[in-house]
Amino acid sequence: METTILLGGKGLENRIINKLKAIVGQEDVLIHLEDRLCYSYDGTFQRGIPEAVVFPGSTGEVAEIIKLANMEKFSVFPRGAGTGLSGGSIPQSFGIALVLTRMNKIKEISKEDLLAVVEPGVITGQFHQEVEKMGLFYPPDPASLKTCTMGGNVAENAGGPRAFKYGVTKDYVLGLEVVTPTGEIMRTGGKTVKNVTGYDLTRLLTGSEGTLGIITEITVRLLPRPKDKKTALVIFDKLEDAARTVTAIIYEGVIPATLELMDRVTINCVEKQAHLGLPLDAEAFLLMEVDGSSSQVAEDIQIIETVCKNNDCRRIEIASLPEEREKLWTARRAVSSAIVQLKPTKISEDATVPRSKIPEMVKCLREISAKYRLHLPVFGHAGDGNLHPNILADKNDQEEMERVEKAVGEIFKAALDLGGTLSGEHGIGVMKKPYLEWELGEAGLNYLKAIKKAVDPNNILNPGKIF
Amino acid sequence: METTILLGGKGLENRIINKLKAIVGQEDVLIHLEDRLCYSYDGTFQRGIPEAVVFPGSTGEVAEIIKLANMEKFSVFPRGAGTGLSGGSIPQSFGIALVLTRMNKIKEISKEDLLAVVEPGVITGQFHQEVEKMGLFYPPDPASLKTCTMGGNVAENAGGPRAFKYGVTKDYVLGLEVVTPTGEIMRTGGKTVKNVTGYDLTRLLTGSEGTLGIITEITVRLLPRPKDKKTALVIFDKLEDAARTVTAIIYEGVIPATLELMDRVTINCVEKQAHLGLPLDAEAFLLMEVDGSSSQVAEDIQIIETVCKNNDCRRIEIASLPEEREKLWTARRAVSSAIVQLKPTKISEDATVPRSKIPEMVKCLREISAKYRLHLPVFGHAGDGNLHPNILADKNDQEEMERVEKAVGEIFKAALDLGGTLSGEHGIGVMKKPYLEWELGEAGLNYLKAIKKAVDPNNILNPGKIF
Repeated sequence: METTILLGGKGLENRIINKLKAIVGQEDVLIHLEDRLCYSYDGTFQRGIPEAVVFPGSTGEVAEIIKLANMEKFSVFPRGAGTGLSGGSIPQSFGIALVLTRMNKIKEISKEDLLAVVEPGVITGQFHQEVEKMGLFYPPDPASLKTCTMGGNVAENAGGPRAFKYGVTKDYVLGLEVVTPTGEIMRTGGKTVKNVTGYDLTRLLTGSEGTLGIITEITVRLLPRPKDKKTALVIFDKLEDAARTVTAIIYEGVIPATLELMDRVTINCVEKQAHLGLPLDAEAFLLMEVDGSSSQVAEDIQIIETVCKNNDCRRIEIASLPEEREKLWTARRAVSSAIVQLKPTKISEDATVPRSKIPEMVKCLREISAKYRLHLPVFGHAGDGNLHPNILADKNDQEEMERVEKAVGEIFKAALDLGGTLSGEHGIGVMKKPYLEWELGEAGLNYLKAIKKAVDPNNILNPGKIF
Repeated sequence: METTILLGGKGLENRIINKLKAIVGQEDVLIHLEDRLCYSYDGTFQRGIPEAVVFPGSTGEVAEIIKLANMEKFSVFPRGAGTGLSGGSIPQSFGIALVLTRMNKIKEISKEDLLAVVEPGVITGQFHQEVEKMGLFYPPDPASLKTCTMGGNVAENAGGPRAFKYGVTKDYVLGLEVVTPTGEIMRTGGKTVKNVTGYDLTRLLTGSEGTLGIITEITVRLLPRPKDKKTALVIFDKLEDAARTVTAIIYEGVIPATLELMDRVTINCVEKQAHLGLPLDAEAFLLMEVDGSSSQVAEDIQIIETVCKNNDCRRIEIASLPEEREKLWTARRAVSSAIVQLKPTKISEDATVPRSKIPEMVKCLREISAKYRLHLPVFGHAGDGNLHPNILADKNDQEEMERVEKAVGEIFKAALDLGGTLSGEHGIGVMKKPYLEWELGEAGLNYLKAIKKAVDPNNILNPGKIF
């Protein structure tokens, strides 16, 4: 759990620095400490300083760098914008940070074939805007979409609120261009939705956290943009009623695009900071958005309203116009900034359970929060059981961080006991490594390691991650 | 391309036969030639006779058999109902057929969590019926669904007409229990839609054609059953108009559940056999089915009707009632039995191209058909570019089969040149092995082989497949 700092590593020899500069250009290799510090962290509180920061401009340059790394035996830590929440991009040993943000072209958007081809450095939010201009739709919407990159999304298999209806990043990746850990250039998948030619390397690489290959081009599937949208904010006195409502809505055959939950602790944090006049005695908010054709949306929202009332909601607000819908989202969007007012260090978990187990999971989380005297607001994607229990602490308070570590272990254990998983969308990185075997077992872990060893014999790519 | 027959193999020693019987029971090991012949083929014209046929009844038994195979160094060829279309389950060397049809329990169907847990031997069509009874929906619908098994569907990543809107088998597999090539029992994924804990072994195993592990339990995601359905059969004078219509419908934001194409050769075959009064001068039929809420379906079918008329269709028939819809499907369902009237041996390909390339692909197919003087009806899933060019020949006519082999090569080349893939849903098996490197390149092929070698060091599981 403690922060890793690699200072005063023996440093890359000048001849290697010069070789790197020869590959990518003088100005695209950074070696000064103040520059390297900028690439030593991600969205967690972990740190690791690379020996150099290298910005390749093409697939060929990436391949040359990886060949050099295999020859000279230094590690390569690929990254995009560094918004990850599991330490997946943080250097763990002697090596360089390989930053793919220079490769940021949108190469193709085809309305006819419903697909797009992008470079890894394209910012997800900007990609959304470009496809939407054409009446198309790319569903994956990680919270960091204004800054995170498509390459990082694929490497970590990013999710987001819309995953409940639309699935996560891996459900949209059709093909990849990849530089293998030995520096070969390889293409996986392609431009067809159906492809069963050989093993599904596209899916294997997606979510492999930069350990099995470096993604240099991505082909994603697109959808037609939904014509209409409605949003409902529903307030519940009892969390159990909110949970029952989620299931009841699905029973009725309605799958909202987003189905977000906020618990009382979260509601109170938000109100304390944003003063929105939220009811502090409410145990849960549900924020739901339905999309599709106008008739479909009207039908769905009506069913949702009925179900909520039948399940004892206190109040329900429905909005159609964009600005009204935005207003209903205000509280949800304020969460992240609000909760860090409690304590400076945020440990954001994403343990995920089967939908039907949400009430039990929330109960466990409350017990864990009380047992270890920790601030533990719970919010997130109720539709797919992907809650985000966030622990707020102070990383300089050693005694508190020990309680955090114990609490995190118990959160993972609770999720697994309920038939869930350690990580729904953040990945394992370095933060969850110690717990991986709990879920995969020895046979599973050995299977992963065998694959890694087979394709990366010199352990060059992002060592120290996942296992 | 020629048929493999392994007769008079040295045979399994009795002590091994006895060990197998000790594991699964006397009556679940078949060694007589007439029995072994029954497990020597699949849906292709390939043949390969196993030394013994073994029917395990549990995951534990499968694991013991695989451990024995590693100790005694014989191959294991796993299979379900043997309906495959690429030879994926056919023995290629000294070993046993491992038939998983005894493991055929539906263990769980949860309406609350929208998932089901099944054993590999469950028949896909029966599974459809069970989930639909509960108002649920499992989309993958391979043509062989009345006989094929869920395990086989996962091993080959089966598709089907509904894949255009709903995706293929891999899009529904949440988790697997697998016996590894060394006989360990491993669990991948789980019961949550979101899971990024370690590499996506669930997707790697799905479509691995029995070469990376034996699937002993499957957890699949389910959807609420669509409330309504409408079917449209549209007749076109020109194939180009039909192809343009497909794209135009998608432009309008409509994604039909199925979007099937039949070319003139196919139409003529069907009419010759079934006498349905089909217009023999029409160049193409489109058969489309839309599903969803009643209002959504009404809206979609209306858009489809307008688009078809704007694209010069000759006639359009629309049906709502089940029996009327069935009638529109008659011609499509008659295809497989109709085309084999032309010649006894059917080589069913599934080369897939980006949707926009369908007209070019059909043009290439006509040229290939003329060049090699072969019957080549074209039909299939136009929505996702997954056409099924079927070559009809007589495998006893050596000279003709040589022309077939050349034609198949050219079909694959054409698909790849158009940015497509060798196989959309049938898999590589033994039939497409010679062409794999055309698509994956040397780096890709080496990456696949490295994974296989790493997890199956003794090359026990389904050797001779894919590569």
